[in-house]
Amino acid sequence: MSDSMASSLCITAIPNVPDIVEGDDLAAIVGDCLVASGHMPVEGDILCVAQKIFSKAEGCIYPLSTITPSPEALRYAEELGKDPRKVEIVLRESAEVVRAFRHPGQSEGTMICRHRLGFISANAAVDESNIAETDAAMTLPPDPDASVVAMRDALEARFGCRIGVVMTDTFGRPWRIAQVNVAIGLAGVPATLREQGNEDAWGRTMKVTEAAFADELAAASGLVVKKAAKTPLVLFRGLDWSPSRSKAEDLLRGKQEDMFR
Amino acid sequence: MSDSMASSLCITAIPNVPDIVEGDDLAAIVGDCLVASGHMPVEGDILCVAQKIFSKAEGCIYPLSTITPSPEALRYAEELGKDPRKVEIVLRESAEVVRAFRHPGQSEGTMICRHRLGFISANAAVDESNIAETDAAMTLPPDPDASVVAMRDALEARFGCRIGVVMTDTFGRPWRIAQVNVAIGLAGVPATLREQGNEDAWGRTMKVTEAAFADELAAASGLVVKKAAKTPLVLFRGLDWSPSRSKAEDLLRGKQEDMFR
Repeated sequence: MSDSMASSLCITAIPNVPDIVEGDDLAAIVGDCLVASGHMPVEGDILCVAQKIFSKAEGCIYPLSTITPSPEALRYAEELGKDPRKVEIVLRESAEVVRAFRHPGQSEGTMICRHRLGFISANAAVDESNIAETDAAMTLPPDPDASVVAMRDALEARFGCRIGVVMTDTFGRPWRIAQVNVAIGLAGVPATLREQGNEDAWGRTMKVTEAAFADELAAASGLVVKKAAKTPLVLFRGLDWSPSRSKAEDLLRGKQEDMFR
Repeated sequence: MSDSMASSLCITAIPNVPDIVEGDDLAAIVGDCLVASGHMPVEGDILCVAQKIFSKAEGCIYPLSTITPSPEALRYAEELGKDPRKVEIVLRESAEVVRAFRHPGQSEGTMICRHRLGFISANAAVDESNIAETDAAMTLPPDPDASVVAMRDALEARFGCRIGVVMTDTFGRPWRIAQVNVAIGLAGVPATLREQGNEDAWGRTMKVTEAAFADELAAASGLVVKKAAKTPLVLFRGLDWSPSRSKAEDLLRGKQEDMFR
């Protein structure tokens, strides 16, 4: 691409995605929504898809009435003012509770957990909002990378072009308030783009520049998503990228690099 | 906006921004680049502008030969394998060193600092790359909010429409590798968009949903920025937002909310 040309990226929230229920063929539904909205995928497109529709299609919703809390769950629930059945689900999803606290004035405390998939987030990414069941909790799908790879393969076969798919979830951050979407599943999309060792525009070697490409996509998808209007599907067109075998775990720091141990 | 319509956002890296030097009228240069590239601002546009061109225009570049390290800087430099003069600049920019470490195999350690403006980042956001001087370090501008407000005011006066301006910088994250851009200065742009307390699409009350809007913009700007091609200027068109008096510090957690104390 010439330096003198402006390069534009278009990000579109695909409307009218129906409510998803267990067993739905998500790739078929997503493909139909793309067609219906006039956004047939073309070579190089990337789709960001919200985790919650994968979790719904894959049946990752647990009615609280079916959950028996463990003694550990009862202890955390007492300390944090939480429903012990929800805590039980959080603990089942977690490899480790990194931190549990309840700030003064908070009605309910927070558990920062390392999910069994490695992601560190509040409540092991267990979600109560945006599910139709009022007394239920939703977990991440068992293998987000596999879920988006299957969707990517089906969409590529249907539309005859190479695309990427990213599964996104909404996480908080330790030092900055509010939430941004991050990438928790990758199909074809590079986790990061390294500029490490490249020369910068002034001819000096840049020591460390590695953009978290998949997380940039996820964060950008939040700009067009309106949660209240159910838009879990966001199309990116005009990106400069090459297919990759990255997995979402490629975005995670190793424990030895964790700054907080 | 109707639910049945796809809503599109376009993000454009504005090309041919010249090298910036101390004393440059940045708003005039940015305005000229927008015009030259055929992207006259329209009502509701938001510009993300990289911190480094503000720092250059405002003369925040310090030749290392002029720096005398303090005893504290000498101690950190010895421990971390860093240039004591660079450490001295980092310490001058910092309110607090949150963490200093050198992982096995790292030639140079890392200082995680709370900048005097409140941002927590590596080396207090002091930068060595992308500056023409080889033995110099670049700091953040003294008041990033004021810098972008001045630019916003000048551009609004010139183009006769209401726009927003965000100053971005590239930060690492504690639990995830690689970098994303974050917002460090705001003019007119809301720091966050609260959906807290809104009903979700299923009629349930969502307890906590607050999107870090300005950080989403900053992260998205990284998708079109090519560092090696000097594109510090990114235009967003098609966003749904209302002007705000947010400051960049509105994105920072209070110390009492910090999960790592």
